[in-house]
Amino acid sequence: MEGPDGSGKSTQISELKEYLNDKGYDVLLTREPGGTDIGEQIRKIILDVNNSHLSYMAETLLYAASRAQHVEEKIKPALEAGKVVICDRFIDSSLVYQGYARKLGIELVESINQFALMGIQPDITFFFDIKPEEAMDRKQNQKALDRLEKENISFHHLVYEGYKILLDRYPKRIRRIDASQSIDEVKSQILGEIDRFLKEEGLK
Amino acid sequence: MEGPDGSGKSTQISELKEYLNDKGYDVLLTREPGGTDIGEQIRKIILDVNNSHLSYMAETLLYAASRAQHVEEKIKPALEAGKVVICDRFIDSSLVYQGYARKLGIELVESINQFALMGIQPDITFFFDIKPEEAMDRKQNQKALDRLEKENISFHHLVYEGYKILLDRYPKRIRRIDASQSIDEVKSQILGEIDRFLKEEGLK
Repeated sequence: MEGPDGSGKSTQISELKEYLNDKGYDVLLTREPGGTDIGEQIRKIILDVNNSHLSYMAETLLYAASRAQHVEEKIKPALEAGKVVICDRFIDSSLVYQGYARKLGIELVESINQFALMGIQPDITFFFDIKPEEAMDRKQNQKALDRLEKENISFHHLVYEGYKILLDRYPKRIRRIDASQSIDEVKSQILGEIDRFLKEEGLK
Repeated sequence: MEGPDGSGKSTQISELKEYLNDKGYDVLLTREPGGTDIGEQIRKIILDVNNSHLSYMAETLLYAASRAQHVEEKIKPALEAGKVVICDRFIDSSLVYQGYARKLGIELVESINQFALMGIQPDITFFFDIKPEEAMDRKQNQKALDRLEKENISFHHLVYEGYKILLDRYPKRIRRIDASQSIDEVKSQILGEIDRFLKEEGLK
């Protein structure tokens, strides 16, 4: 699941998990950055407001390190045990934030992350499409902002543009969700896509 | 400067710095992992005995992240200011520890680290050649061992083999120093190599 905070991702993740559980699937819910205790330690370095001088390349490699640990410790074993894995942010966040918005280059960040993924790729990625201003409005009354959240609105616009580029680049894997719709409308769109995918794969 | 703890690296680093200072060079002494405050935070994660489940790929990416920060924040600016940089461990440690001893592959680890180096390469690397057992004997009376130091002796033998492979692969850049010699003998070998290098480069 990809998209900004405030886009309704968390709600839909719970709904999707319940739906898949009802169909009899074991589901692992996880998230990035973090997802493991070592990932959380890495996340602390990345988000620490005192680390504003963290270089873009170091930031990219830290996210990749966290992802490598996440894949090896949690995602790969879950998939091997036949579970469905739903991840709140994954490689596309790095491609968009570090590759596009930080201008390191989507291809360069993709190359680094191939080391972390060890052959694992998401089957479906949902991009929660919501204008940066609207997502920020929805978040306004929440907790203190961390370092990434403090980036100015033009950065969030770059992130948004980056996701649009990925949508063009990976039209089969990434599905656009209109996140300005109601919770029920978003839910029915996601479950529709999931049902179609399961059918295509010959699954129930 | 590459080689195991207990090989006499630190002593020789001070000696070399003094020698270069006397010749009128500004010298930056630094070390890996660490070298920057963000690098120290990353180093803590890597060396924490509670993180023994850190995956080899994540470990490699963490070292690369620390190196990227180190290069961008300290090494590159120092070189641009005309300083000589002496670094206690650098990319070769990753090639040997993660690439060879952890068996991820020297080429794979080199590819990851090219992102961190941003075009910077050491002019000369000194490998302090000392048998693993001898290096450990020299260290025996020191502080509590950290996670990497606890690796068993067969791991240290692999590391030693790895350095020998790098010596073959980069015969011009990496100079072997017989670290079982006396401090003065080692010093005179290093300074001899440095003088020759400076001459070749047309420097004083």
